[in-house]
Amino acid sequence: MKLTKKNLEERRDRVYDAIVIGGGAGGLSAGIYLQRYRLSSLIIDKGKARSFWMQELHNYLGLPPDTPGRVLLKRGEQHYESVNGDMLNGYVEEVVDEGETFAVRVKVGRQNSIYPTFRAKYIIAASGIIDNLVPLEDMRNVFEYAGYNLHVCMVCDGYEMADKQCGFFAGSEASIEEMVFNLSWFTPYITIFTHGLFEVSEPLRQELREHGYRLVETPIKQFLGENHRMTGVELVDGTEIGLETGLISMGSTYHNTYLKNIPLEMKGGYLITDKMGRTSHPRIFAIGDLKVGLNQVVVAAGDGALAATQIWREIRRDRGPRRWEENLSASV
Amino acid sequence: MKLTKKNLEERRDRVYDAIVIGGGAGGLSAGIYLQRYRLSSLIIDKGKARSFWMQELHNYLGLPPDTPGRVLLKRGEQHYESVNGDMLNGYVEEVVDEGETFAVRVKVGRQNSIYPTFRAKYIIAASGIIDNLVPLEDMRNVFEYAGYNLHVCMVCDGYEMADKQCGFFAGSEASIEEMVFNLSWFTPYITIFTHGLFEVSEPLRQELREHGYRLVETPIKQFLGENHRMTGVELVDGTEIGLETGLISMGSTYHNTYLKNIPLEMKGGYLITDKMGRTSHPRIFAIGDLKVGLNQVVVAAGDGALAATQIWREIRRDRGPRRWEENLSASV
Repeated sequence: MKLTKKNLEERRDRVYDAIVIGGGAGGLSAGIYLQRYRLSSLIIDKGKARSFWMQELHNYLGLPPDTPGRVLLKRGEQHYESVNGDMLNGYVEEVVDEGETFAVRVKVGRQNSIYPTFRAKYIIAASGIIDNLVPLEDMRNVFEYAGYNLHVCMVCDGYEMADKQCGFFAGSEASIEEMVFNLSWFTPYITIFTHGLFEVSEPLRQELREHGYRLVETPIKQFLGENHRMTGVELVDGTEIGLETGLISMGSTYHNTYLKNIPLEMKGGYLITDKMGRTSHPRIFAIGDLKVGLNQVVVAAGDGALAATQIWREIRRDRGPRRWEENLSASV
Repeated sequence: MKLTKKNLEERRDRVYDAIVIGGGAGGLSAGIYLQRYRLSSLIIDKGKARSFWMQELHNYLGLPPDTPGRVLLKRGEQHYESVNGDMLNGYVEEVVDEGETFAVRVKVGRQNSIYPTFRAKYIIAASGIIDNLVPLEDMRNVFEYAGYNLHVCMVCDGYEMADKQCGFFAGSEASIEEMVFNLSWFTPYITIFTHGLFEVSEPLRQELREHGYRLVETPIKQFLGENHRMTGVELVDGTEIGLETGLISMGSTYHNTYLKNIPLEMKGGYLITDKMGRTSHPRIFAIGDLKVGLNQVVVAAGDGALAATQIWREIRRDRGPRRWEENLSASV
């Protein structure tokens, strides 16, 4: 059921089999599997999964390629509710390892917030990442185009960028080194914008020149365009540069601070997991964009199935097989 | 494009980036990703993926839980064609490792068959498995119920079996040992049918008795029921046993004989792969049910994304970055 400030007292004494933190593609898929394994689960979602922002999911098997991410999420929520999963809109502040269980402290409500604690045997961290965007004074100008033809994921949207005039919005020298040469697979017509945030070293400048990519270091005033279609940028000096598409590569914010007091093996900002999604803690799983791997909706959905299955196997093993009691009494 | 006997000559001299063998969930997802990476791909499908038989996909994120497997497959085919993938209805007889490329020999057409050969740099084996069914004289009687309430996958359909009178149709003593105690998680009301195919050892008989499970060793004459709803079985001696659901566990046929002349690491009938789906051959990937792992549609779809991505990374690295030529000439 949907938990709210009004009814969450009913769950105060429950120990869930698993609490899933994050209601994006990975978390919803995990929740559906957990409930279908007849385990008890609670998904805590703060809203706004990364896929929520995708205007068109181009590469998710089974959905027409113009399906908005929010449609996938809505369907997943309905699916999860249809198998009696608990769902709560809230922000997880901290997970405390209590030994047999975890205590999950949640902030519910933006105003008059309350701070309930829920308990579970297993945690699935599915809270993902969110892309840092170009920091303009008027962020609405960025939101106007982000997710339309101003992209954040080359794997998702490279196909749509093919051979187009592309702005690459970099957050660091490393992001240029790691991404621009790969982006050229889709289009070589690349103009790199540093937004004046960092210096570019001479060796990299030289390499960019050798590939014919343009480098713009003057800060951006605003994106140009209309009806969610970005057509270029205006710099603070008034210069306008025409573009047909863009890729933002300014790093990500990892939604994993609630795990800060539990030591877990990481690589960069990502959690290291085994094939079933288990972290270095035996009862904490990480799926989707939070773990080392490919940040794709369909991969996150598969991850959810794997983590839920592994948790089921362990709980099933602990409880042991059920007996057909009537037949036992009959044979006594 | 759809390849047929009439037009396949047009592809005779092409070396595809990847040939995907099998057009089920894994193969279609791989094909969609490959084409969206602007690689060239051919999916060769003999029809009848395992998910084709599923009347309701209960656990695929994004699709309502009563969606038939064939709807997922149809949508995937349309999606793949929309990104210009090549598709051929045919049966792959053999894959020959030629060094730089693979030669894939295909039988096309059941009558007046022709045997064209296609070439690719990479192979994705996505041809899956198919469940062995109860071998009755009248197999139409089995097909009448299989995929409805006579299931082949406990993970997929255990939820629907919960606390029901369940027939377990075993192919071997091992299948009883491996599955029945897990099945009891969903329902303890288990009647095991050996169909007279094998002997059950005394220790296992004892264990089944201790759990109250019934054991029926008389061969089955037919399934009873109507409108695809199985209500029990009739044995060859005329006895009728009422059931509400069933699980067939008689082993699987692995669709991988075309790889027989290429030495690959296996575990049981399954191919061993790394996290991206690569087998022990650097240019052969295996995804979905053919590989060691969880046989689930959503996992296969994720696998397809991973394998395609790894292939793209390698081909991209080999070709190197593209240059923006106009800017290079301008600076000379």
